[in-house]
Order: sequence, then structure tokens, then C-alpha cells
Amino acid sequence: MFVRNAWYVAAWNHEIGRALFARTILGTPLVMFRTGNGAVVAFDDRCCHRNAPLSAGRLDGDELECGYHGLRYDPTGACVAVPSQSLVPPGARVRAYPVVERNDWVWIWMGDPVRADEATIPDLFWHDSRAWKAVGGYNHVKGHYQAMLDITLDQTHSRFVHPNSFGSDDKVRAKPKVMRDGASLRCERLLPASDPPPLWARIAGIEGKADCWNIWRYLPPTIIQFDIGIARIGSGALEGDRSHALTGHNSHAMTPETARTTHHFWVAARNFALEDEAVTKQFAAVRTIFLEDVAMVEAVQRTIEAFPDAPTIDVGSDNPTIQARNLVHRLVEAEAGAGRLRRARARPARS
Amino acid sequence: MFVRNAWYVAAWNHEIGRALFARTILGTPLVMFRTGNGAVVAFDDRCCHRNAPLSAGRLDGDELECGYHGLRYDPTGACVAVPSQSLVPPGARVRAYPVVERNDWVWIWMGDPVRADEATIPDLFWHDSRAWKAVGGYNHVKGHYQAMLDITLDQTHSRFVHPNSFGSDDKVRAKPKVMRDGASLRCERLLPASDPPPLWARIAGIEGKADCWNIWRYLPPTIIQFDIGIARIGSGALEGDRSHALTGHNSHAMTPETARTTHHFWVAARNFALEDEAVTKQFAAVRTIFLEDVAMVEAVQRTIEAFPDAPTIDVGSDNPTIQARNLVHRLVEAEAGAGRLRRARARPARS
Amino acid sequence: MFVRNAWYVAAWNHEIGRALFARTILGTPLVMFRTGNGAVVAFDDRCCHRNAPLSAGRLDGDELECGYHGLRYDPTGACVAVPSQSLVPPGARVRAYPVVERNDWVWIWMGDPVRADEATIPDLFWHDSRAWKAVGGYNHVKGHYQAMLDITLDQTHSRFVHPNSFGSDDKVRAKPKVMRDGASLRCERLLPASDPPPLWARIAGIEGKADCWNIWRYLPPTIIQFDIGIARIGSGALEGDRSHALTGHNSHAMTPETARTTHHFWVAARNFALEDEAVTKQFAAVRTIFLEDVAMVEAVQRTIEAFPDAPTIDVGSDNPTIQARNLVHRLVEAEAGAGRLRRARARPARS
Repeated sequence: MFVRNAWYVAAWNHEIGRALFARTILGTPLVMFRTGNGAVVAFDDRCCHRNAPLSAGRLDGDELECGYHGLRYDPTGACVAVPSQSLVPPGARVRAYPVVERNDWVWIWMGDPVRADEATIPDLFWHDSRAWKAVGGYNHVKGHYQAMLDITLDQTHSRFVHPNSFGSDDKVRAKPKVMRDGASLRCERLLPASDPPPLWARIAGIEGKADCWNIWRYLPPTIIQFDIGIARIGSGALEGDRSHALTGHNSHAMTPETARTTHHFWVAARNFALEDEAVTKQFAAVRTIFLEDVAMVEAVQRTIEAFPDAPTIDVGSDNPTIQARNLVHRLVEAEAGAGRLRRARARPARS
Repeated sequence: MFVRNAWYVAAWNHEIGRALFARTILGTPLVMFRTGNGAVVAFDDRCCHRNAPLSAGRLDGDELECGYHGLRYDPTGACVAVPSQSLVPPGARVRAYPVVERNDWVWIWMGDPVRADEATIPDLFWHDSRAWKAVGGYNHVKGHYQAMLDITLDQTHSRFVHPNSFGSDDKVRAKPKVMRDGASLRCERLLPASDPPPLWARIAGIEGKADCWNIWRYLPPTIIQFDIGIARIGSGALEGDRSHALTGHNSHAMTPETARTTHHFWVAARNFALEDEAVTKQFAAVRTIFLEDVAMVEAVQRTIEAFPDAPTIDVGSDNPTIQARNLVHRLVEAEAGAGRLRRARARPARS
Repeated sequence: MFVRNAWYVAAWNHEIGRALFARTILGTPLVMFRTGNGAVVAFDDRCCHRNAPLSAGRLDGDELECGYHGLRYDPTGACVAVPSQSLVPPGARVRAYPVVERNDWVWIWMGDPVRADEATIPDLFWHDSRAWKAVGGYNHVKGHYQAMLDITLDQTHSRFVHPNSFGSDDKVRAKPKVMRDGASLRCERLLPASDPPPLWARIAGIEGKADCWNIWRYLPPTIIQFDIGIARIGSGALEGDRSHALTGHNSHAMTPETARTTHHFWVAARNFALEDEAVTKQFAAVRTIFLEDVAMVEAVQRTIEAFPDAPTIDVGSDNPTIQARNLVHRLVEAEAGAGRLRRARARPARS
């Protein structure tokens, strides 16, 4: 089951234009497009009349015309014309979802629209701030979104999945500080005088040990932010003075497509050497690194399906991913409970 | 569920020869071939001994020899030889289906053979009459046969699916006359001084308005005949004098392959300019036009599977397709009822 | 259901080396490799921690390191290291299966390891004896392993599936002698002065009739051995004097991959003309002949799935395959019964 009352990343902003764009989210096929004034619209990709996919229709101004019998929908999803008759039947509409553009991503609310509050969308300013240089991408993953969360939240995998870029023995051995912070979960790895991740060492031009950090915040159900970086030993970065350090901020959105597949949106940004093409090129390696994660998650998915009831063993470093799964579980339970309550209230009282 | 007691189109006559031909109809794999005297035979494509597909065997005279252990079947489906022994076991046979060739199509009866009456096969004389020039084809459709019936019976789709060939605004707006005619359904669109379908206007060399008609007869469960045409305004065609008009007759057979796929056999014929190669070439466009229908039906199929329980809204122009579906539904119900009755009678009476 | 307490062929010996090798047997994905001293190890292909396939990890000496978080397993399947902590959690292990190399094949025991007795592996000495010249191969079959047993045990198919190589009318008509021999089944066809199989006639340079034999032994659930050959009429071969005859020994192992697919391992060996390249080339035809069996079994599989409940008719020549299926059925029943008994004993007594 999916959490429905949450903001999910539906697309990169540049994916949505005046062409009809089809994408499935939480198992629901959607059609997305921009109106003439640039607003993004998202509908169920299904004409309410005879089930044609609306993405096979066409835009006429701000109206979407179904490609089968020409029913026309305005940006609220209301059917406003049926070509074969003068009246529009009552109830003829498609579901339109609340959509917000923020930090180059298109966010969608798949739950109760009354509860959609834009203020709860996280501020991922490094995506589009002039003080940051970002690279981003999209991966389609044949695996469950929680497996993508697992691999991204458990940094002990880096030494084995990304040995030549993100991994380090010291990162594996470090005992991170995990703490709840409101609805989110925060995990801090401060690694003074440690083996740095090879990619960061190369970018910083540091040989041998360095002061490193790797801090993430998880905003359930699907958003992860990273604050990572490197500095020469004793430069004060781990105590808060980043002026002599190199800092990166990454974002991941693991949007469920179906119960077995995931849309992975990611950004990796830095706030140093913004114009340095060589550094930009080095940073572009993250594209390949995240594909290593995808390959592992897809292999795990196949294995889980082959051994459907096999038990697993937990180790100490699973603590943050177990906490993360519990947070999602509680959100799902809360929605199910609220649903039961709503249905109970809707039932007529007995005398 | 399928109607079983009905004639279905199984193949074009030229598809069946002395080579074994495999095709699935109503979910049942069949093997078809011609005997030495040209009669078409259709069997379940399964040897009764060890389940080899008979289509992987070979013809020897009028006997089909299974490719696995060499069992031989005569054209009635009776096993007449088992190579490893002198006797044929009692009950060794495959099911053979009544088959009739008529108007270039091979018709098959998948139900109770006692009820197979050739007289109920519709006369589609324009397929092979010298007075008509026909073009025909076959499409394999990844969609339910009733969706193919829907799109073909509801002419208001033409304006949107075939805007440059069959569609016209006037056809969309016309209120057709729908009437029962025995077991069949008839739908008449007479369109005096209307926007003609672009393909017909081009063939007729008419610019601007024309007298047009579009009349179909639906013979449940799967056959549709069209009578369509164009004439200059006031030439009398809509009152019955077709001598100054151009007339076409089309046929469609939507034979279920499985619950999700369909064999679409079609013919488009005209009774004018029979030798005119330019007109023949223009008419050949119907091949592409019917593929536009197939593409829409396949898209609808995918959408229905993605939204399995979604409700739909009816509009006025759905009247003929709703009536058509009801006719099929009643046939299915009648067969189910007859089955219950048969089983009840077969039960021994209690004293 | 599969027989679990049996030796199955898992691989050719040359398939398993220091690279991790993945193969599914009885529905269970396995990873196989050799330790430094050449012993073959087989594990469930699933890390007990977070379900990564171990075949995506790497060998380090005799330890298999998981490619996800670096857990390390020794050749017994015990987890011996978790990189992110100093202790290994109790119970951290993967299932390791008993494995034996014998006659160029790797044999695996998928059942209760206590019952794995190497002495019950059949002696297929012609695979690797200097007195024999063998050719061998592997086929992946999209069909049930019992259908592969059926086609191999019922020699009356040869006349139809392999008419130009193994088939002969006399082999079809012969009444074989079928007898139980301990746990195995034996079937003898002695064919004096008969039409020889065309391949053997070509190899022997015999035109016309010959003394032939075709004897198999079936060792349930999945091993078949053949003793086949040809001699001039009256040379005494059928009475036991093979000194003037040409003899071949074949082996087949039909290891279930899943309920619908099979690993087919085969060997065809001869004890004459060992160095004769022309004969070796003629014998290589068996590779194609066994692929003809595979094609038929895959066609039968598709037909059975299309007609799931269709009854079949038995003929006299089905006797050995019916006996063979009964032997497997009894083994499955015996294992199910033993399981029920074990569970009953494990239940606490009620007072």
C-alpha cells in the first residue's frame, strides 16, 4: 500500500510542456500538460466516457480533447463539451490532481485534495539557486521504492556497490547518529581524519586522510536530502566552519510507479568551483554511480520474488532504514485508520 | 464469456490450403486444412494421446498424422490409426468443428454442432460478386472484440480517429435512426446536403456539401455490414435512387481470439468504377483507416486494465452500442440458461 | 511438486569455476563456485541480510562476499563477517547444498542433507572413460521435466520426430520388455533382422536389415541411461556377444528448473572407432536430434497450457512412461507422508 496524502515528484519541469505527457504514479496512469499560461495540469489518463487514454488526444488551447469521440476537458478536469450533443452529462469529468512546480521538479498530491498543503513541500534550493551548480537525472527502476530508499539511506553499501567513488572503509565502520526531527529522520556521519570517498578526494585534490561528513534527512515517504563534503584535517568543517571545505547537496525522490517499479529523480549539487568544467565533468560521474544503485535494487527485487517468504537477518547498520520503514508504515496505517473512521461516521446511526 | 452457438469468421479462404494452419478462436487453439477435394477441416489443435499440437504434424492425403507418435485422424476427427499397435482405442478422436466457406471467408461454428445452420450465415455478396470490386484484410487486435464492435458501430468516432478520411462534423451531429430487425440491429444516418467524409468527397470529385448516407446492420455477436455512399445534392439517392450515387458496402467480422485479443477480418467494396485503378488506389486507404481503429481499441484495452473498476459515463450517441452489447449479453445469458436446464434434466429424479 | 531427496545434475563440471555461476533448480535460485582446492560449493542465491543475489558478489579466497553490504560467507554457508560491525549476528547463514562431482557432471542434493548418500549417484562411466568417446551438451527447455522424460522413454516417437536418424518402423512396432529393477525401471527392445535407425546404419555401413537393440534404464526421478547398438544379422549381439557389434551408451538428466522449465544435460558415447573423426562427426548429429525432442516438448507444454483440463487417451506403448510417472508420484507421496509424520511427531501430546 502507498501513502496517498503526500507530495510526490511526478516529473522534471522540462518534461512537461504543450505535448501530452503520460506517466503512471502509485499505479495510476496520468496525463500531464501545461496550459497556455504555463500551469501544469495532471489528470487520470482515462476519458470518463469510453476509457480512451487522454494522452492519445490533443490539446486545443487549454482544453484537452479526447482522441476517440472528442469529449473536451478544461484544466479542472470538468468535461465542457460532447461533440455529438449539446448538453454535457452531469458528472462527466476526470480526476485532476493538485500539482505544484518547485525547484525544477513537478510535485503531485495523489491523496485527499483538501489536505494538499504546498507549505509541506521541502525546499530543495540547491536545484536552481545561482549559488549552486547542479546536475540531475531520472532513472526508471524495476524495483520497489522502499528498496531504493533502503540503498540510499544505508551508506554502508557504498564501500561495496561504489568502491571507487563513494565508498570508504571508514564510512562502513562509522556509527552514525540517527535522530527524529519532526516528521523527518536525520542521520549524521562525522568522519574526522578518515579515508575519504575516492570521488571527493579526487575533486578536492586530497591524498590520504581528510575530515569528511555525510548527513542525510529523510522526509517520508519518498524524499531524501544529503549534505556531504570533505575538508583538510582540522580545518573546522566538522565543527561548522565550512569556509575551507567542499560541500555537496544531493536530492533523491523515489516515486512509486507501481508496486514493483519506481521513478527515481535525483540531483547532485555543489557550492564551489561553479564554473570549473573539469569539476563539473568529475561530478557527472554520479549519474553512473546512481545506476549502480538501480542495478542492485533490481537484482534484489528479482531475488525477493524468487524467495517470497524468506526471512532476513538485521545488522546494526540497518537501524536508520528500519526507522525509515516504520515511519512509512505508520503513515499507511494512519491513512487506513482514517478511512475506517470516515466510513464509520458515514454509516447511519441505529436507534 | 463468449457466445458459442454462432458462426464466426475463422479465416480468409486463401489462408487455408494443404499446409496446416493454426489459429486460436474463443480461446481454443485450432488447426485447419483442406482435404484433397478442397473441403476445409477444423480440429482442436491437440492430439488426444499426449497433447502434441496437431499443427506440428503433417497431412497425408486426407489424414492428419500427429508429429509426435504418428496417430492419424480422418477429416471427421476420428483417430484411424496408432502406428505402435493394430487397434485404435475407443474414444480416440479430436473435436472437429462445422466449417462453411462463403463469400471468400471460412466460417466456423464453435457451439453445439446440432444447432449449426448454414442458412444463418449472412450473405456478404459484395465480397466476391462480379458487380463489385472489393479490397480486404486482416488485423490482429490486442483488445476485446466488443471494443472493436464499439468503435465500428459508433460513427461519431470518425471525426476524431479518422479526421481526413471518414470523419465529418455532420456525421457526429446526426441523430441516427436505430431499429431492431429480427435478431439484428440496424442504424441509419441519412445526411442530406452535409459535409461529406473527405475520402468519399475525393473519390466522387465533390467539393462542398453532398447527400451522404451511412447505414449499418449488426448481426450479433460479431458481424457488421455497412451500406455507405455519396451523391450530389438532390440526386435522389437518399430517397432510394442510387443510379447517380456512389455506393460502398463494407463488412467486419470481430472474431474473439482470447478474452483480450481479436481477429479482425474486413472487406470494403464498391459497385462503381470497377476497373478504375486510381479509384482502387484511393479505396486502399481503408486499410490504414481500420488500423487507426485498431490502435485506439488497443489503447482503450490498456486503459481498462489499468483502471479495472472505473465507472463510465454514457452519452446519447452510445445508444446503438449499448443496444448491441445488450443483444450479446442476452445471447450469453440464454446459453448459460440452456446449460442449466440441460444439466437439471440430466439429473436423476428423486422419488 | 518435486522430489527433493534425490541427486540432480546441476551443471557440467566445466561450467563451474572461480567465477560465480547462477542457476535455478527446483525453483530455487542457486549460486555455485569452486573453492581454491577445486571443491564445488552451492548456496541459495540470496544474502540472508537484505536479499541481494550472492551471484552479484565476488569471491575472495574461499569466501563469498555479498556485493551489497559486504557480508562474507565461508564454504559451509556460515556468515563469517559483517563489515559494519565486529560481531556476526546469530543465525546469519545461507543454505549450502551437498554437491558431488562425478563423471563430468556436478550433482546436487536439494533435500534433507542427512539423507544425501553419494553411493546412490549412478555410475555413468562412459562420460569420462578412456575406453569411450563421448559428446555432450545442455539444452534449456521451456517445458515440464516429465514431458522430457516422456519423450525420451517412449521410443515410438523416434519414427515421427527423428525419421532420418533414430526412427524406424520396426522400433515403433516392437513390444518392449519393461521390468522393475530395484528402484529403477528397465526397458528392452531387441530387434533381430530389423530396419535399423538410419543414423546407426550409416555409421555401421549396413544397408538393409540388421540386428539392433535399444535398452534403457530409468533412475527416478530424472536420470536415463541408454544402451543401444547395431550388428550384422546373426552376429550374436542380441545374445550377448557384442564383439562384432557397435555399441553406444547415452545419458540424459532432466533437472527441473521451475514447474514449467527444465535443464537437459545429455551425453552420447561409443566404444568403437574412438579416433575416427568421420564417425565423431556423424555422432555429433545427436545434438540436433535432441533439439527435435526439445521442440516437441515445448510445443506440448504450450498445448497443455491452452487446454488445461483436457483428458488424454493412453495407448499400449505408453506403458513404460506411465510406470515411470508412477514411480515419481510415489516418491513425491512418500516425501509428503514423511513430512506429515514429522509434523505430527513434533506436535505436543494432549493429555
